[in-house]
Amino acid sequence: MRLPTGFQELIVALEGLPGVGQRTAGRYAFFLLDHADRAQRIARAVEGLAETVRLCRRCFHLAEAAAPDGLCGLCLDLGRDPDVLCVVETVPHLLAIERSGSFRGRYHVLHGALSPIKGIGPAALHIPELRARIAADGIREVIVATDVDAEGEATAAYLADALAPDGVRVTRIATGVPMGSDLEFLDGTTLARALAGRQ
Amino acid sequence: MRLPTGFQELIVALEGLPGVGQRTAGRYAFFLLDHADRAQRIARAVEGLAETVRLCRRCFHLAEAAAPDGLCGLCLDLGRDPDVLCVVETVPHLLAIERSGSFRGRYHVLHGALSPIKGIGPAALHIPELRARIAADGIREVIVATDVDAEGEATAAYLADALAPDGVRVTRIATGVPMGSDLEFLDGTTLARALAGRQ
Repeated sequence: MRLPTGFQELIVALEGLPGVGQRTAGRYAFFLLDHADRAQRIARAVEGLAETVRLCRRCFHLAEAAAPDGLCGLCLDLGRDPDVLCVVETVPHLLAIERSGSFRGRYHVLHGALSPIKGIGPAALHIPELRARIAADGIREVIVATDVDAEGEATAAYLADALAPDGVRVTRIATGVPMGSDLEFLDGTTLARALAGRQ
Repeated sequence: MRLPTGFQELIVALEGLPGVGQRTAGRYAFFLLDHADRAQRIARAVEGLAETVRLCRRCFHLAEAAAPDGLCGLCLDLGRDPDVLCVVETVPHLLAIERSGSFRGRYHVLHGALSPIKGIGPAALHIPELRARIAADGIREVIVATDVDAEGEATAAYLADALAPDGVRVTRIATGVPMGSDLEFLDGTTLARALAGRQ
């Protein structure tokens, strides 16, 4: 049966969220209809994003629109090692590494990975800006922490080649057996990598 | 670590949605940051709700704000039996009954159930309007399809009493064993009801 057009439109709009199907979108829509305050708060927050959030001019992490020099909190943090860069595909990946508490350098967020199929080349991934940073800031080491999948590996291989002339050390995060896993249930590729990377 | 204030605010706003915790809210927020078109569509749809969706003047189902006489599609549908009303707690309950295809009368949506603890009394549930409809429209039967839980049962009992003087037949949906269930795993109350209601 037909529900009001404006309500249907809200369901269709919400269906685009990751992992949200028609049923969940419907639940959210009814909730928003019953909670006008919450609905307005979400609408205002979504509309405020464009005005308040920027990408850091230097590393492309999220930054306050009003931040000094257009830099993010990590680039402004003088306590972090300015000589080591960790290259990641996305901001959530950066946050995961920050949560691990095991890196005190700075970042460079590609916002994607190389993908000829999707038409994503080096220029779309802030790689020219990465090379410019290396040249200008005297970076010592670039740790490539892209995903260990086809696109992430291709991106890492490309970076190793592309940055070679820049005289910077390019390293790749280790691949191997994750903590707590049972070897019996690991895929062969991971095991092969773990054996080849033995120390 | 601190993310931009506007982005944090979006995560907090989304955390209010049913079943959405911090992690899911974060996923939605990053998605909305990367998909500005989708974000604007959701914001516009949320803000449009208040202008385009009303409750039906007669049955309190959802109606188009511009609908004739302020009535919903079901009240405007002349093919439906005007003499039988099905009383439900919420619009999703109405939709569930419609999907079953087993009812061709009209509805009355309470938008809740009696709850002294939450301070919800008959006037908050459109029950005065229900009595007015019964008197004005010559309703023959009221089927009470509130939930079979404490509040729904209390509401059904209240309605049976309150509508008795109005000379209308008040019935309650049957309680018993749902289709496809194994008696071994059913709770005792449901089994007791199924036995008491044997036909």
